[in-house]
Amino acid sequence: MLNRLSVTKTGPLSSLARLQRAYLSGTGLSPTIKELLLVKPPAVDSTVVAQGHIRSIRQGKSAGFVDVSDGSIHSSLNIVVKNPLEVFSKLQLKVGQSIAVKGQWVESQGTQEYELVYNSNDSSHSLSVIGDVPESYPIQKKATTYQNLRNYPTLRHRTSTLASILRFRSYMEAKFFEFFNSRDFVKVVPPLITSSDCEGAGEQFVVESLAKTKAPIGKEKTPEDYFFGKATYMTVSTQLHLEVLALSLNRAWTLTPCFRAEDSNTNRHLSEFWMLEAEICYIDDLEQLTAFTEEMIRYVTKDLVAKAEDSLTTGGAVDLIGSRFKKEDIEIMKGRWNSILSEEKWPSITYTEAIEIINRVMNKGRSKNRLQWGDSIQTPHEKWLAGEHFKSPLFITDYPSGEKPFYMPKSKNFDPARPTVACYDLILPEIGELVGGSMREHNYENLIAEMKRRDMNIEDMQWYLSTRINGTVPHGGFGMGFERLIAYLSAMENVKDVIPFPRVPESCQC
Amino acid sequence: MLNRLSVTKTGPLSSLARLQRAYLSGTGLSPTIKELLLVKPPAVDSTVVAQGHIRSIRQGKSAGFVDVSDGSIHSSLNIVVKNPLEVFSKLQLKVGQSIAVKGQWVESQGTQEYELVYNSNDSSHSLSVIGDVPESYPIQKKATTYQNLRNYPTLRHRTSTLASILRFRSYMEAKFFEFFNSRDFVKVVPPLITSSDCEGAGEQFVVESLAKTKAPIGKEKTPEDYFFGKATYMTVSTQLHLEVLALSLNRAWTLTPCFRAEDSNTNRHLSEFWMLEAEICYIDDLEQLTAFTEEMIRYVTKDLVAKAEDSLTTGGAVDLIGSRFKKEDIEIMKGRWNSILSEEKWPSITYTEAIEIINRVMNKGRSKNRLQWGDSIQTPHEKWLAGEHFKSPLFITDYPSGEKPFYMPKSKNFDPARPTVACYDLILPEIGELVGGSMREHNYENLIAEMKRRDMNIEDMQWYLSTRINGTVPHGGFGMGFERLIAYLSAMENVKDVIPFPRVPESCQC
Repeated sequence: MLNRLSVTKTGPLSSLARLQRAYLSGTGLSPTIKELLLVKPPAVDSTVVAQGHIRSIRQGKSAGFVDVSDGSIHSSLNIVVKNPLEVFSKLQLKVGQSIAVKGQWVESQGTQEYELVYNSNDSSHSLSVIGDVPESYPIQKKATTYQNLRNYPTLRHRTSTLASILRFRSYMEAKFFEFFNSRDFVKVVPPLITSSDCEGAGEQFVVESLAKTKAPIGKEKTPEDYFFGKATYMTVSTQLHLEVLALSLNRAWTLTPCFRAEDSNTNRHLSEFWMLEAEICYIDDLEQLTAFTEEMIRYVTKDLVAKAEDSLTTGGAVDLIGSRFKKEDIEIMKGRWNSILSEEKWPSITYTEAIEIINRVMNKGRSKNRLQWGDSIQTPHEKWLAGEHFKSPLFITDYPSGEKPFYMPKSKNFDPARPTVACYDLILPEIGELVGGSMREHNYENLIAEMKRRDMNIEDMQWYLSTRINGTVPHGGFGMGFERLIAYLSAMENVKDVIPFPRVPESCQC
Repeated sequence: MLNRLSVTKTGPLSSLARLQRAYLSGTGLSPTIKELLLVKPPAVDSTVVAQGHIRSIRQGKSAGFVDVSDGSIHSSLNIVVKNPLEVFSKLQLKVGQSIAVKGQWVESQGTQEYELVYNSNDSSHSLSVIGDVPESYPIQKKATTYQNLRNYPTLRHRTSTLASILRFRSYMEAKFFEFFNSRDFVKVVPPLITSSDCEGAGEQFVVESLAKTKAPIGKEKTPEDYFFGKATYMTVSTQLHLEVLALSLNRAWTLTPCFRAEDSNTNRHLSEFWMLEAEICYIDDLEQLTAFTEEMIRYVTKDLVAKAEDSLTTGGAVDLIGSRFKKEDIEIMKGRWNSILSEEKWPSITYTEAIEIINRVMNKGRSKNRLQWGDSIQTPHEKWLAGEHFKSPLFITDYPSGEKPFYMPKSKNFDPARPTVACYDLILPEIGELVGGSMREHNYENLIAEMKRRDMNIEDMQWYLSTRINGTVPHGGFGMGFERLIAYLSAMENVKDVIPFPRVPESCQC
């Protein structure tokens, strides 16, 4: 099935490289190691040029072995060096150097299907160092921690695992795109700069042009003192704008950065994170939203299990698994994927039922930990419910009104003594909340009454309210922290390791 | 080929609606009008529920006609109302109202393949207004301007054309994802909050937590006065971070918002816009970059022409064309697509050649407009070169060093008397610059010498410089304003009409 490259064994580097490029990529680009090993391997015995960073070096008596990686796949290309004593003493090869090798493409005896043989006595072969490294080059083939790697923000993605996480993230983003396309959603781009406040003040970042921040301070500000004519913020959630767009397009989704100036530094929070949000019109029941959420997570997960063992798969699971050295990590990943794909529908309980279960089972005999109706369900409760009690992803629905934002309508089975709203969280074992969603109040009178009750600034929200008097329709939606999902599915403990340059309080490296 | 829905003709709305939902979407969602008309039409004569906004109303003697749109496709669903006098006088139907109609699905005599018949004498039929509109509802079926529609930011996407632009944008984003996946690129998310400055100061937005902006002013700032411990900005280009990631992943791309606090309000500029950027390793010739750029634009365009006439296509061209009432717009679109897909490779000239052509042909006989070597090529020059002279997308390469940023290396044919750098712009007829790219200086000594020559702050850029001493490799890349491409391909004149909520100086509506 695979095409084989047939090129002349001799000729100068540049013309061979050009021929190889034209054939392999159709792009005029040098082939990646993934293309060489997996996608379009060259013909055996042909002369091939490969480029990448040295991941490890071993010197034997009759041959040396140089593993080269370019980050296109978790596998390294193994370079077999003939006359190793001579070559190694002359070239001073070091881990981390970028090199270009021209040699003979052969079938391998090792774990790879192919390897590249460099023979210094063959005048058609060459091996050159493109970029050197200092003695202190930190990415060595030895055990280290993800935490330590964060000290090297520009180099940590040279490691097999962290590079595979970025490839996995890219793969998953494409999967979500495929899912939403198949369900007739339009991907839209709500603004990140906003004059509104979606969920509540105090956690926002202010954004202003450098020029205007240099204006005199201390006097009352006028529109001229702002770049946009008024105070503006980075969005904490695109929901309100996404609702507007869904009310024109029926179904809309987005995947954009959101920004929260919370002063917390945990393994689940980032000041700048990516949020996947969707809004759907013409739904009238919360259960439609939870069913859709479950369908979505199952859809993007199902190929991971199916393709986990398929070595020809060029993205996703095999790449992720192949890059991990710890067997435990692989078992954790597979366990999570299988739990998502359980044959039964995920359980769904109300907040009230959750409180009852926590008190009855988790806090059995512990009188001082008992939750009162209205108390928050904390992350440890969530982890216990999904991880220990239900052993499954879990929906908790219909939380008390007082805990939730103004735009959520009353629950279907509303009880005035215990007022709740039509909302839900998706809770995952070990990490807690992944998705939060709700129906959106689409009745103008109800919405404005609730805003007045909360003493909100109605004038500033006229644009949003106007959708409720211009052909309003029932709708609902949800938001999902993208890093949390990626971390969960890839068995990474800290969201800082699934985003290239994490932003957290007191830290904006690079 | 199309599946047909077969459901009972009677029964209450809720159970029918539920059955229809389960069948049509597999999601528990109500079917979109696109699904009803195109993807999975119900069986003729079955009872069907449709929902959407009224786009137009016509009252005849024996029948009324109500066009309903939900934004999922440019087409409206035609509702044929029996007993129109009775129904219309009772229901007070108005353009803009959201309605739900339960009626008989029939083959149509009109332009659509199907229509929905509502007969008030049939007790299984129903027609109800979900959301009313005021008399002033601005989106009426009459000619207006895009400029006027911008006064209604929450309603303008109810128009056929602006909704189709958003669907087209979504379609194009998926096309780019498909292209980059096929070329082995990893989609990455560089940070938007940065402590660096990519291209030069003065046009940046400052970002700071609301809490810290309330700190006392006037004293020397210390790290504690900043949320991130230092001054931070919204990115003007993710290039520098993208280079870092490409140097670990071989090929990386991104599509993210970028922010420029320029005080200009034109039809080509936004303060918040989306930029597609790519960085590619192991290239050593500018021509690889221009060839790749051409390949990319051709790839995302080719289906538009191929599918323009195919009414079963569910995205992209047919949707875009179907939504346009002006024949001129359609001709402009098709002309642009065909020009991109010309059989010849796009022309490529150097800056020096461009100056020569402008002086010799465009400015023939006009002595006072003559350009000197080193002068900027302005947008009118660009439009003339691509639109009038070459009549084709056009690459201009090797601009004078003085006009360009520090990270660009010298041109391959460097002339010390006329120093140029290895860079290029892609110029399109009628809009000018679409893409700007270059090789990136990968040699540490050359890079730092240029930064010193420009008196740049080297300490702040150590992170970027460090990539050049840790296994550096030759690489290059480019950036493309996404809105400009969408506007060009969809024959829209103003980028404000291809992004849902445009941000420009003195304007941050909603």
